[in-house]
Amino acid sequence: MSRNTHAFDLARYLDARTATVNRALDRFLPKAAAKPATIHRAMRYSLFAGGKRMRPALVLAAAEACDGNVPNALPAACAVECIHTYSLIHDDLPSMDNDDFRRGKPTSHKVFGEGIAILAGDALLTQAFEILVQAKPTARYPHHTLVLELARASGSLQLIAGQVADLESEDKATSLPQLRYIHERKTSALLCCSARLGGMTANCTPTQLRALTSFGYHIGLAFQVIDDILDVTQTSEKLGKTAGKDVAAQKATYPSIVGLEKSRKIAAQLTAKAFAALQPFKRKAAALQALAHHLLHRDN
Amino acid sequence: MSRNTHAFDLARYLDARTATVNRALDRFLPKAAAKPATIHRAMRYSLFAGGKRMRPALVLAAAEACDGNVPNALPAACAVECIHTYSLIHDDLPSMDNDDFRRGKPTSHKVFGEGIAILAGDALLTQAFEILVQAKPTARYPHHTLVLELARASGSLQLIAGQVADLESEDKATSLPQLRYIHERKTSALLCCSARLGGMTANCTPTQLRALTSFGYHIGLAFQVIDDILDVTQTSEKLGKTAGKDVAAQKATYPSIVGLEKSRKIAAQLTAKAFAALQPFKRKAAALQALAHHLLHRDN
Repeated sequence: MSRNTHAFDLARYLDARTATVNRALDRFLPKAAAKPATIHRAMRYSLFAGGKRMRPALVLAAAEACDGNVPNALPAACAVECIHTYSLIHDDLPSMDNDDFRRGKPTSHKVFGEGIAILAGDALLTQAFEILVQAKPTARYPHHTLVLELARASGSLQLIAGQVADLESEDKATSLPQLRYIHERKTSALLCCSARLGGMTANCTPTQLRALTSFGYHIGLAFQVIDDILDVTQTSEKLGKTAGKDVAAQKATYPSIVGLEKSRKIAAQLTAKAFAALQPFKRKAAALQALAHHLLHRDN
Repeated sequence: MSRNTHAFDLARYLDARTATVNRALDRFLPKAAAKPATIHRAMRYSLFAGGKRMRPALVLAAAEACDGNVPNALPAACAVECIHTYSLIHDDLPSMDNDDFRRGKPTSHKVFGEGIAILAGDALLTQAFEILVQAKPTARYPHHTLVLELARASGSLQLIAGQVADLESEDKATSLPQLRYIHERKTSALLCCSARLGGMTANCTPTQLRALTSFGYHIGLAFQVIDDILDVTQTSEKLGKTAGKDVAAQKATYPSIVGLEKSRKIAAQLTAKAFAALQPFKRKAAALQALAHHLLHRDN
């Protein structure tokens, strides 16, 4: 019964946050008709393709946990969503994961062609920094710090490193440490950065920032382990993308290395660590806790 | 005789500047062996492929024209070079201009494959912002302003808009205004941004910034008209890239629309406007003037 009440609250919370983030993204981006229209249509096609806005929600909830407010955290929330969307567009390309569908819709290169898809990704990546510096800087975290935070999480040692390692692991035996390296970078890096940026826009204390770092890291890793599990256990229709792709591509996943049950246990352990990290925030962590529950119990 | 003396000075100036910029880029970038090595090797392969460092030179010379100094302007100089290099890697891809050679060397995707080439471009684009915010902010131009300047010049309304319009103009009749639109964005935007960022790192006055804007805009447009001319008049060996490609691809160029002689006249007129813009700097514009001469009289 308490679980149902909880789920209901989170659904409302996420709906409200998603609407706020979508309005802000619409405001920050050039209009679809802005010349050249192709690129702006392509940017908006992927950005408004029904993404769950988990990263922006994490930014906003982290800010609130540190007594911050939504308007001050919105630019950072929109910036991480632009980075996330660009990375999906490029990851889906034929020379990368070669995916035709994403969230139940044809991927960018299927609609606009490869050249425009690459450029739409480039444009969203660039736009992220333009949006981020529209955040109001706080005493502890000037623009310089915010930009470094996002650039490092998205750069060649984190997000991009994960995609490279993922590409290079195809058709090769992958160990659990190698798989963890990939997941830490492909998924944890940006989720961790989202939580940290949220805290920064609320001028969080160093202790709060450490707590958010641990929360973001563990929830990110758990999220990816669950993604691996869902690829094995769910249908394409349910996922809104091609299921069983990892198996078909003989891609290393947590289930393929340690089995399904052990994978579920690992995901639960990681989430427990994420919850433990939230202790310093006490009641103010309600939204972050709800998000963590949502990420662990999702089925798509 | 004065031309020869002039050329000699500029060669020394450019050699010294190139060495300084190369050392700084080496310092700012992750080492080639940093994990995953592939991406860092690919980033460095294109970044150290013998580029002429015209944009960094422009940043540094603009800073000096405003009584700034080289160390303060170096992060901006390296940031624009990272943006320029990323845009070349992506422009050369099979789904874009499909170029096998650049500066006499195989292009990134020929060496590393398409996936890694796309990611190396992404990584350099991201790195540019990480480097830029390591500049010392000045009273008139905080980090926020520097990031907006670079993001806008590189974004979907400028640099990327130019590449999109260029892609879309293939196999179509292109008018002179359309071609100018492409050149303004593909080339002028980043050269103009280079001159402006140089001034900003020297805390330039609004009058100086306007002068640098006009200089950068006109020299950028002239540069591209000359590129069009060289594609028709020079050999591949001389250019270090495939000559006659524009003609072969039936691509609109200044020579194809208005003829070779008129193109040369336009380039000269644009350069005259660039020189005129330098008047407020008097003697301090020596390096900028020399750069302009170099860009107009180059043969590769």
